[in-house]
Amino acid sequence: MMSKDKNQPRPKAETPKGFRDYFGAEVTERAEMLQKIAGVYHHYGFDALESSAVETVEALGKFLPDVDRPNEGVFAWQEEDSDWVALRYDLTAPLARVYAQYRNDLPTPYRRYAMGPVWRNEKPGPGRFRQFYQCDADTVGAPSVAADAEICAMLSDTLETVGIPRGDYLVRINNRKVLNGVLECMGLSDDAQRDAVLRTIDKFDKVGEAGVRELLGKGRLDASGAYIDGVGLSDDQAAPVLAFLTSRGDTASATLANLRAAIGASMVGAEGVAELETMAELLDAGGYGADRIILDPSVVRGLGYYTGPVFEAELTFEIFDEKGRKRQFGSVSGGGRYDDLVKRFTGQSVPATGVSIGVDRLLAALREKGRIGSQSHGPVVVTVMDRDRMADYQAMVTELRTAGIRAEVYLGNPKNFGNQLKYADKRNSPVAIIEGGDEKTQGIIQIKDLILGAQMAENATLEEWKERPSQFTVPRGDMVAKVREILGGQR
Amino acid sequence: MMSKDKNQPRPKAETPKGFRDYFGAEVTERAEMLQKIAGVYHHYGFDALESSAVETVEALGKFLPDVDRPNEGVFAWQEEDSDWVALRYDLTAPLARVYAQYRNDLPTPYRRYAMGPVWRNEKPGPGRFRQFYQCDADTVGAPSVAADAEICAMLSDTLETVGIPRGDYLVRINNRKVLNGVLECMGLSDDAQRDAVLRTIDKFDKVGEAGVRELLGKGRLDASGAYIDGVGLSDDQAAPVLAFLTSRGDTASATLANLRAAIGASMVGAEGVAELETMAELLDAGGYGADRIILDPSVVRGLGYYTGPVFEAELTFEIFDEKGRKRQFGSVSGGGRYDDLVKRFTGQSVPATGVSIGVDRLLAALREKGRIGSQSHGPVVVTVMDRDRMADYQAMVTELRTAGIRAEVYLGNPKNFGNQLKYADKRNSPVAIIEGGDEKTQGIIQIKDLILGAQMAENATLEEWKERPSQFTVPRGDMVAKVREILGGQR
Repeated sequence: MMSKDKNQPRPKAETPKGFRDYFGAEVTERAEMLQKIAGVYHHYGFDALESSAVETVEALGKFLPDVDRPNEGVFAWQEEDSDWVALRYDLTAPLARVYAQYRNDLPTPYRRYAMGPVWRNEKPGPGRFRQFYQCDADTVGAPSVAADAEICAMLSDTLETVGIPRGDYLVRINNRKVLNGVLECMGLSDDAQRDAVLRTIDKFDKVGEAGVRELLGKGRLDASGAYIDGVGLSDDQAAPVLAFLTSRGDTASATLANLRAAIGASMVGAEGVAELETMAELLDAGGYGADRIILDPSVVRGLGYYTGPVFEAELTFEIFDEKGRKRQFGSVSGGGRYDDLVKRFTGQSVPATGVSIGVDRLLAALREKGRIGSQSHGPVVVTVMDRDRMADYQAMVTELRTAGIRAEVYLGNPKNFGNQLKYADKRNSPVAIIEGGDEKTQGIIQIKDLILGAQMAENATLEEWKERPSQFTVPRGDMVAKVREILGGQR
Repeated sequence: MMSKDKNQPRPKAETPKGFRDYFGAEVTERAEMLQKIAGVYHHYGFDALESSAVETVEALGKFLPDVDRPNEGVFAWQEEDSDWVALRYDLTAPLARVYAQYRNDLPTPYRRYAMGPVWRNEKPGPGRFRQFYQCDADTVGAPSVAADAEICAMLSDTLETVGIPRGDYLVRINNRKVLNGVLECMGLSDDAQRDAVLRTIDKFDKVGEAGVRELLGKGRLDASGAYIDGVGLSDDQAAPVLAFLTSRGDTASATLANLRAAIGASMVGAEGVAELETMAELLDAGGYGADRIILDPSVVRGLGYYTGPVFEAELTFEIFDEKGRKRQFGSVSGGGRYDDLVKRFTGQSVPATGVSIGVDRLLAALREKGRIGSQSHGPVVVTVMDRDRMADYQAMVTELRTAGIRAEVYLGNPKNFGNQLKYADKRNSPVAIIEGGDEKTQGIIQIKDLILGAQMAENATLEEWKERPSQFTVPRGDMVAKVREILGGQR
């Protein structure tokens, strides 16, 4: 792999633009969270699926091959004299392909979960990466809203299992058919106007009732001072939308009654309300009360492909944003029913419903709540005072590891002892072990409590330094016991 | 995402050529194995690294951009008016890039492990895929062979932790410098001839001593009847190579004495023997005896970039190959010291050593040993006899799950009860629960023991059918207890 030509410029050691590398706890904390989530999904009867990272562009569907610019939105390339292929951009399109391909061998309904990276060929921005994790669970082939209710219950269990306590989250449910009923009721026949109304509804969370009223009408000055043109509806026309958005009552039955009023005589609307009612009943019977899952007509979910129930998990505790203002943490998961994804392949409609968890968002929330990342120490470092006695030092780490303690021997050049302590510092080691020739002869070792040392360095008085030495001598035979004592509940 | 044009042909639902999808236990068994491996690595002080799947072609190094055929061996594409990038083809090249990029922030030595898919743009063949998992651990920046010895010990611990018992594997160690000493001793100055000798040595495992002698000389008829040309050495010239290959003695010191004889006066050879001796001492002191780790000069490892110690883990138990012949399972892991990978980026030599585990091979070995995959059942299925009582059935699965039992309610169309049982069959369910209207009234349920049912269907007599009914009635309150009894130690 070496270049023979000395004059060739050296390659740049750089992560490609828009991509990033993950180190240590960033990797293991995510893996642990996903493992807990997989445990809940498995318990609910869902099976793992790991489809290939590469799909034919044809199967991905959205992105048709085009000689000039085949890869808008995806990373795509042409196989030798053959198909265009691309990296998957989500886990739903591969599920549709897999279900269509293996439908005769898979059980119906097919409950599956999938976790892994997806790729987007988009302009990278701050905090926006072109490779990120998704974590999905879907039920394919179950027409009943019992499947949707099950997923909402599972989502609630999942959040509590990973460490979001009850009371700090809410799963909110709505139904796209109710919204369609409202639009039908309004007599909006113009598709463009319909879409504009949907986009406006989606802003309800941000701009509130008054904001939506303005945006449905003439328009609105936004926070930056720019004027946003409105949809141009009259107040009368806009009324059903606002009635719908604000129809959340104190109880599920109050909400359902409000919705019935908002949809008027619309058939599809009535169907949506009935579905919501069934879901509410099932969840109530399962013990999922209003402290966990509620009906909330303001949930819209942007994606166009939802056809029935839609849901969202919101974290309700407050955090400080970049500008120091308090705000709710917000959504970490969402999903709903989509009944047409498999049809492209087979011609037959296959009902499906699913949920996707925002992996990075949920990890951030767990960090915010102090559930992960608060106190993770590196390994105990056994220093090397005498390089000819490497076997002794190896024996020490083996002893520590056998006792269940993460430990390693210093493997750099041992000449400069300061470098060994700097290394232990960089590793965030809790303890360093020192055994020079004198100690060896006396059958003792020195133990440096690096956690205490760091605390003392920050705020101890001279007296405290004398009273609580962070480095002390113990018999060699006490090494494991003493290290264990220092580690205490800290790891 | 729907195509509006009814005349457009439907996309094919196909995994791209050379790729595959993994289902259920295939995913979870691999994840569990990798998690155990990560546990051992972590314990040894190694930190996780997950680099981006995409690298610049420049950083990958081997595959320089070429307008006509930039992606020989890798999947590559050009960013908009910018760099060529590619999917990583292994985990070592990204490590070199990451270390060069972050070297001022990373500890030195840097112990890291990485696990994940890599991609190869090669012609797919039977059992050869273009996406597969690798699992690596490397120590960068440690010149001492103590680092190599540590990795060999860790490899031994890893194999035992995932379920390969002691006695069923052997870690074999060699040193490239010893081999170089032997070649020096032979006075081979022609690079091509040297390479030919190396390639021949690599075949020792397959063709044995006599085979290598022939291949170093005039040539050899292989099993298929084809004549393979030899390197063209005289018997005298070939002698040191054969002495080297067969120098494994009963003990490490016997092997070292044989090697000292084989390298003659070569300085580099002597250095290699001294390194092997140090490793043998360290491993012996660590309690890694000849039942786990041995010196074996026949280990060569194909890769050109190894510069010192090389090692390989071999599974020594026998399996039957496709033709029904007994053979050893063989290698599942290998690695060694490579000191030049980072230099391309920084100009400075950085010593490094590492090991890679063949994930699919090791999984296959664990399946072979019955460690995984023997008895994995699907979820308990609660059938739906009365679709208006979905809430009752949901309550049953909730009860089962709360008791730690994987369970689900049937979510397909419940009309045809036979379909529900077929579904339970396809899911490999151990138990189906049935509660019709009559049962409900009487406060009972029916439990179908599907494992027993399947066993009976295979080989039970009529008497046994009568004596051991696989379907029976229990009070509703006994559901969990009875299901637990049936599951027994089976899950």
